[in-house]
Amino acid sequence: MSRIPVVIVGASGYAGGELLRLLLAHPGVEVRQITSESHRGEPAAALHPNLRKATTLKFAAMGELQPCDTAFLCLPHGRAVEIIDEVTAKAERVVDLSADFRLREPAAYEHWYGWAHPRPELLGEFVYGIPELHREAMRGGRLVSSAGCNATAVILALRPLFAAGAVDTRTTVIEAKVGSSEGGASVSPASHHPVRANCVRSYKPTGHRHTAEMLQELGLDGESHIHFSATAIDMVRGVLATCHVFLNDSLDEKEIWKLYRAAYGSEPFVRIVKERDGAFRYPEPKLLAGTNYCDIGFERDAEGQRLVVMSALDNLGKGAAGQAVQAFNLMHGLPETTGLEFAGLFPS
Amino acid sequence: MSRIPVVIVGASGYAGGELLRLLLAHPGVEVRQITSESHRGEPAAALHPNLRKATTLKFAAMGELQPCDTAFLCLPHGRAVEIIDEVTAKAERVVDLSADFRLREPAAYEHWYGWAHPRPELLGEFVYGIPELHREAMRGGRLVSSAGCNATAVILALRPLFAAGAVDTRTTVIEAKVGSSEGGASVSPASHHPVRANCVRSYKPTGHRHTAEMLQELGLDGESHIHFSATAIDMVRGVLATCHVFLNDSLDEKEIWKLYRAAYGSEPFVRIVKERDGAFRYPEPKLLAGTNYCDIGFERDAEGQRLVVMSALDNLGKGAAGQAVQAFNLMHGLPETTGLEFAGLFPS
Amino acid sequence: MSRIPVVIVGASGYAGGELLRLLLAHPGVEVRQITSESHRGEPAAALHPNLRKATTLKFAAMGELQPCDTAFLCLPHGRAVEIIDEVTAKAERVVDLSADFRLREPAAYEHWYGWAHPRPELLGEFVYGIPELHREAMRGGRLVSSAGCNATAVILALRPLFAAGAVDTRTTVIEAKVGSSEGGASVSPASHHPVRANCVRSYKPTGHRHTAEMLQELGLDGESHIHFSATAIDMVRGVLATCHVFLNDSLDEKEIWKLYRAAYGSEPFVRIVKERDGAFRYPEPKLLAGTNYCDIGFERDAEGQRLVVMSALDNLGKGAAGQAVQAFNLMHGLPETTGLEFAGLFPS
Amino acid sequence: MSRIPVVIVGASGYAGGELLRLLLAHPGVEVRQITSESHRGEPAAALHPNLRKATTLKFAAMGELQPCDTAFLCLPHGRAVEIIDEVTAKAERVVDLSADFRLREPAAYEHWYGWAHPRPELLGEFVYGIPELHREAMRGGRLVSSAGCNATAVILALRPLFAAGAVDTRTTVIEAKVGSSEGGASVSPASHHPVRANCVRSYKPTGHRHTAEMLQELGLDGESHIHFSATAIDMVRGVLATCHVFLNDSLDEKEIWKLYRAAYGSEPFVRIVKERDGAFRYPEPKLLAGTNYCDIGFERDAEGQRLVVMSALDNLGKGAAGQAVQAFNLMHGLPETTGLEFAGLFPS
Repeated sequence: MSRIPVVIVGASGYAGGELLRLLLAHPGVEVRQITSESHRGEPAAALHPNLRKATTLKFAAMGELQPCDTAFLCLPHGRAVEIIDEVTAKAERVVDLSADFRLREPAAYEHWYGWAHPRPELLGEFVYGIPELHREAMRGGRLVSSAGCNATAVILALRPLFAAGAVDTRTTVIEAKVGSSEGGASVSPASHHPVRANCVRSYKPTGHRHTAEMLQELGLDGESHIHFSATAIDMVRGVLATCHVFLNDSLDEKEIWKLYRAAYGSEPFVRIVKERDGAFRYPEPKLLAGTNYCDIGFERDAEGQRLVVMSALDNLGKGAAGQAVQAFNLMHGLPETTGLEFAGLFPS
Repeated sequence: MSRIPVVIVGASGYAGGELLRLLLAHPGVEVRQITSESHRGEPAAALHPNLRKATTLKFAAMGELQPCDTAFLCLPHGRAVEIIDEVTAKAERVVDLSADFRLREPAAYEHWYGWAHPRPELLGEFVYGIPELHREAMRGGRLVSSAGCNATAVILALRPLFAAGAVDTRTTVIEAKVGSSEGGASVSPASHHPVRANCVRSYKPTGHRHTAEMLQELGLDGESHIHFSATAIDMVRGVLATCHVFLNDSLDEKEIWKLYRAAYGSEPFVRIVKERDGAFRYPEPKLLAGTNYCDIGFERDAEGQRLVVMSALDNLGKGAAGQAVQAFNLMHGLPETTGLEFAGLFPS
Repeated sequence: MSRIPVVIVGASGYAGGELLRLLLAHPGVEVRQITSESHRGEPAAALHPNLRKATTLKFAAMGELQPCDTAFLCLPHGRAVEIIDEVTAKAERVVDLSADFRLREPAAYEHWYGWAHPRPELLGEFVYGIPELHREAMRGGRLVSSAGCNATAVILALRPLFAAGAVDTRTTVIEAKVGSSEGGASVSPASHHPVRANCVRSYKPTGHRHTAEMLQELGLDGESHIHFSATAIDMVRGVLATCHVFLNDSLDEKEIWKLYRAAYGSEPFVRIVKERDGAFRYPEPKLLAGTNYCDIGFERDAEGQRLVVMSALDNLGKGAAGQAVQAFNLMHGLPETTGLEFAGLFPS
Repeated sequence: MSRIPVVIVGASGYAGGELLRLLLAHPGVEVRQITSESHRGEPAAALHPNLRKATTLKFAAMGELQPCDTAFLCLPHGRAVEIIDEVTAKAERVVDLSADFRLREPAAYEHWYGWAHPRPELLGEFVYGIPELHREAMRGGRLVSSAGCNATAVILALRPLFAAGAVDTRTTVIEAKVGSSEGGASVSPASHHPVRANCVRSYKPTGHRHTAEMLQELGLDGESHIHFSATAIDMVRGVLATCHVFLNDSLDEKEIWKLYRAAYGSEPFVRIVKERDGAFRYPEPKLLAGTNYCDIGFERDAEGQRLVVMSALDNLGKGAAGQAVQAFNLMHGLPETTGLEFAGLFPS
C-alpha cells in the first residue's frame, strides 16, 4: 500500500515514543516529522533508546511543521487546544492523545479539571477514541480524541453491564493499580527510584480526572457515581482495574459471559480471560506490555450482589498509542489490526 | 528481667521465622525450642538465612517438646487444633498464629472454610489477637488466637467507623494489595519467579477467608457485607488495604480525624498517616517491613458519600509475628512494645 | 511468499514459547505442530498465556510428528541427541536449541558437562548457531545448533578483539548478570518468589558450562582462559555480560571503535552502544526484551591495560529463539530480519 | 548508661537518615541536633518517613550547632573539609561519612577526584573507618573517616588474601552490583523510575573513586591494580562485590577457609557464608538491609588460578551509617555491637 504521511506533535514523551515505535513499523505509514520544542535537532533515539537504528528522524520545532495527512498530538493537558487550529491547517486528520477534547460537556472540564475550556464549540467535533464504542464514527472521521488509559480499561470493562442496565449505578467502586509510566517522562521527587521502587502508593484515592470520561461513556449522571481510586505500584507499564459493581438482578456467571461475549466476541483487541486454574486465570497486565489488547475477566461473588470485573491493558498501548493507531486505521479504512500485531511477551 | 521460656511450634515457615527473629532479640524471652517435623535436626539458619550467627538452635520434633511458659503455634490451617491438647499439657500459655481459633462461631468455619470445626467448645476460650481491640482480655490471658494479616489491616482501618455507626454496613468494598510471602514458604507453579515477578494477579477477587474475621470483629451480620478482594503484586512483604466505605452522614475530614484520634491517639503501633504532600502522604507498606506498625490514612471523596481508608502493615509483622509478640507482652505484663522497637527502613 | 512448514519439538518451555510467538508472526512460516509429552492435548495458550487468541495449536506427542521442512528442538540437555534420528527422518532441516551439538570436541563435553557424548560423529555436522560468525555455513545448511545465551553475549562482545589478537588470552574475566528465565519453566525452591525476588545471587561463580562455547568460538586453548561468573538478579529476561579484557597493546578507544565497526557495522542485529551521557550510555538489557538485538559497548580504563566490554541481549531472544529464527532465515534464503523486526519497548 | 550527646550534620540525605534511625535506638546516645540548611525547621520525619512517631527532632541550621560529644558528618564531597574547624570547635569527636578524609595521600585526591585537597595536613589525623582493620586506632580516637560502601565490601573481602601475599596484585577484577540509594536522595533523569527500574546499567565501568580507598587499604602501589566496575541494578539498598583474584600459589579451599577464619573468626559483623547447597550458598545483600553485617564467601575455580570472592553489605548500613556507629562505639569504649543488633529480614 502507499504510505500515508503522518507527523507526531510532541514526540518526546512516553506516549509519543510508543506511537513512534508503532508507526515506524506500520506498513501503511510514513512518519514525516516528529516535533519537540525542547529537544529540537536531537535524534529520536536520544530520548527513545529502543529506537536506535530504527530511525534517523530528528525532532523538529512546531513551527517547522509540514503538510501531512494525519497529525498525532501527544502534548500536555491544555496545550493541544492552543495549537489545534495550527495543526488542522496542515493536517487533514488529527488524533489527539491529550484530554483536551475527550469530554463533550464544558461543565465537566470545570468540575473535574478546574478548567474553563477555551474552545467549547470544538468539543462536539471529536470522536471519543475507543473504537469498540465508536467504530462507525471513526470510519472516515477527521478528528479523534484518544481516551485516557484508566478510562479505557474501566469503560471497556463495564460498558456491557451498564448498557444492559444490569448494575446499580450508584455504588460502583474501582481500584486501579498503575505503573510509573502513567506519570510521564518528567522527573519528580516522587518518581526518584529509591522512593518509587517497591511502593504501593495511594496517589489518587479520590478525584481522578479520568472519572469524567467513565461517567460520560457509561452514560451516567445525576445520582450515579463511579468511585474510582488509583494506586501506584512498582511497575513501569500497565494498568489493572478491579471494578466492583453491584448487580440489580441476580445474574449468574453464565449470563454475564453471554453479555461479554455479545459485546466483544468479535473484537480483535478485547479478550475475555477467565480460566479455571493456573496463575493467569484473570487479566494480567504484564502479558500486555507493548500490545493493543484489553483483557477482561470477572468473578461473581457468592455473597450478596457483587460482581468483580478485572480489566488489564498497557497504559501506553491500548491506553494511548496503540488505541490511537487503531483509530487511525479505522479513519483510513485500513484493517484495524495493522501495525498492532505484537502478541506480548511471556515470561516477562 | 528474668527470661520467659518459650517454644515455637512449626518454626520452619515464614511466620515462624519472623517470630524466631523477634523472640531471639526480645530481652524478656528465652527461646527454648523450635519445632519442625520435616527439618528436624537442621539448624534454624538453614531455613532462615538471616539468622546466621544469631542462634545455634536446631529444629526439634513435636514429640520432643519440653515444658515451657508460652508456646507459639505457626502451623498450617487445621493442624493447630489437632495438637492443642498436647501443647497445653506442656505450655501454660498459647499464642496460635493459625486460623483455627480465630472465629467464635463454628458456622463461620463451615461457611468460609468449608470445615466442620472439630473442637467447637474451644472457640470461646481464645482471645482474638488484635491488642488494640482486646487488650484487657489479653492481660493475664492464657490463650490468644493471632489475627489474619489482611483481617488485621482491615479491622484496624474500619473499626472506629463501624463502632461509631458512621457507615453503611452493606456496601463496604476493600481491595488489598499483597506480597508473595502471604503465600508461605511452599513452592508452587504460581510462585515461580518468572511467573510471579511483575505480576498484578487477581488471586482472590471474592470469597477470601479473612472476610469472616472482618465480619466478626466489625460486629456485622445479616444484611451486612464486606466485599473483599485481594490482588497479588510484585512485593515480598506488605499489605495495603484500600477500603471504600459509604458514610451514613456527611462527616467531614475533621470529624473523621477525631474518630481516629480517639481510637488510636495513644496506641503505640497504630499511626494515622495523612500528609498534605509528598510521596508518603498515605500509608506505605514498604516503610513497614520488619515493624509492628499498622499505618492508617483516609481521604474523603468530594463526590457522594465515599470515604477511602488506607491501611498498611507487614503481613509477617503486625499481620503475624509482631502482633503475636505484642499479645505475648500483654499476657505477661511486659511493656507492650518490648522487642518490637524496630522503626523500619527508608529508603527501601 | 509460500509458507514453510515447521514444527517445534518441546514447545512447553520458555524458549519453545518464545519461538512459537516469533514463528506465528513470521510471514514465511506455518507452524504445523508443537510437541510436549507432558502437556499433550492442551492448547498452546495454557502454557504461553501471551498467545491467547494468537493460535489454536495444541501440543502433540513426539510420536505424532508429521513430516515438515524444519524442526526446531527445544529440549532439555541430553534429550535432543536421543531423538535426533527420529527428527531428521521427518524434517529436512533442524535447528537445535539445546547444548547437545554446540561443541565440536567430545572431550569438551566430558570436561564441562561430565558427559560422554553418545553420538560424537554428529558433532561436526552442526553449524554453531551465531549467524554473525557462521553466516555462510548457514546459507543452505541443514543442521544448526543454536548458541547458549550467555555464550552469545560474550562471543559477540569479544570476537573482534580476539580475532585481531588484541588481548591477553589468559586473564579475561567476565561477569554476567542474568534473569530468572534462564533457569527455565521448572519450579524449584530457589525460584520461589519470596526467595528469588530482590536477589543478587552468585549462582555460578565458576564452572559455567557456557564457558566451553566461548573457548571454542573465540579460538582458545592451552593456557588461555575465560574466567566466567554468573550472578542472578531480580529480572526475568535479559543478560548483561561485563567483560574485562587486558589489551596486549595500548589501543585507544578510537582504534577499538574501528575494530567493532569493521566487525559489526553492517550487521542488522548487533549495535554498538556508546554514548557520551544519559542513562543509556551503554547496553541495557531492559530495552531488548523480545528483540533479536545484541548491543555492545566498551570503555577503556585509563589505568593499566583493561578494556571493559559490555554486551546485552534477551536470553530468550538473541540468546535463544530469536537467533534460531535468524539462522532459519539464512538456511532458507529469506531476508535475515524476517519476523525479527520488533524494536523493543521503552519505557519498560 | 548515661547517654552521649551527639549531632548529625547534614541529616537530610540517606546516610544521615539511616544514622538517625540507628542513633535514636542506640541506648548510649542522645541525638541533640540534626542539621540541614535546605530543610531547616522541618521535622525529621518529613524526609525520613520511617521515623514517624520515633522522634520530634527538627532540622537546625549549621549555625545553630550546640556543643556535643560527637558530631557525625553526612555532607557531600568537599563540604566536610570546609566546615571541619567549625565542627571540631563544638564536638570532641568527629565521624565523617564523606570521602574528604579517607585518603592519606593528597596525590590520590588529585588522581581519583581531580581535586586539590585544601587541608592536606589533616589527612593523617583521621583513622580510616573500617573497624576490622583499624580497631585499635579507633579506641579512644577522636577523628574517624568512615569508609566508602563499595570500598568496605571490597577491602573486607580481599584484605586477608592481600595481607598474606596470596594473590597476584596486578590482575584483580571486581564487579560490584549496586542499588539506587548509592546515588543519594537527589533526583535526576537517570533516577526516574521508568528509566531506573529494571535496569542493569554499567554506570561506572572504570575510574570509580572508591578504587583509591581499595588501593590504600590493601597496601597496593606501583604496578598493582584494582580493576573495579560498578553496575546499577533494580535494588534500593545493597552491594554485592564479586572479586576475581588470581592466586600466586595453588591454595585450595581449605587453606583459603583458614585465612578467612583467622581474619574474621571472632568478628561480630563479618560472616563467612559458604554453604553446600540452597539458594543462599553465598552472600546475598537482600538479607542484609538495615544490618551492619558484611558477608563474605568464596569459590575456587577448578580452572587456572582464579578465586572468586563475593562480599555483600548494605551500602547504608555497614557501608555507611552502621559502620560509623560501630566506630563510635569503639571510640567510646562501648560494646562494639551496641545499637547494631538488627539481624535483617527474610523473606524480603
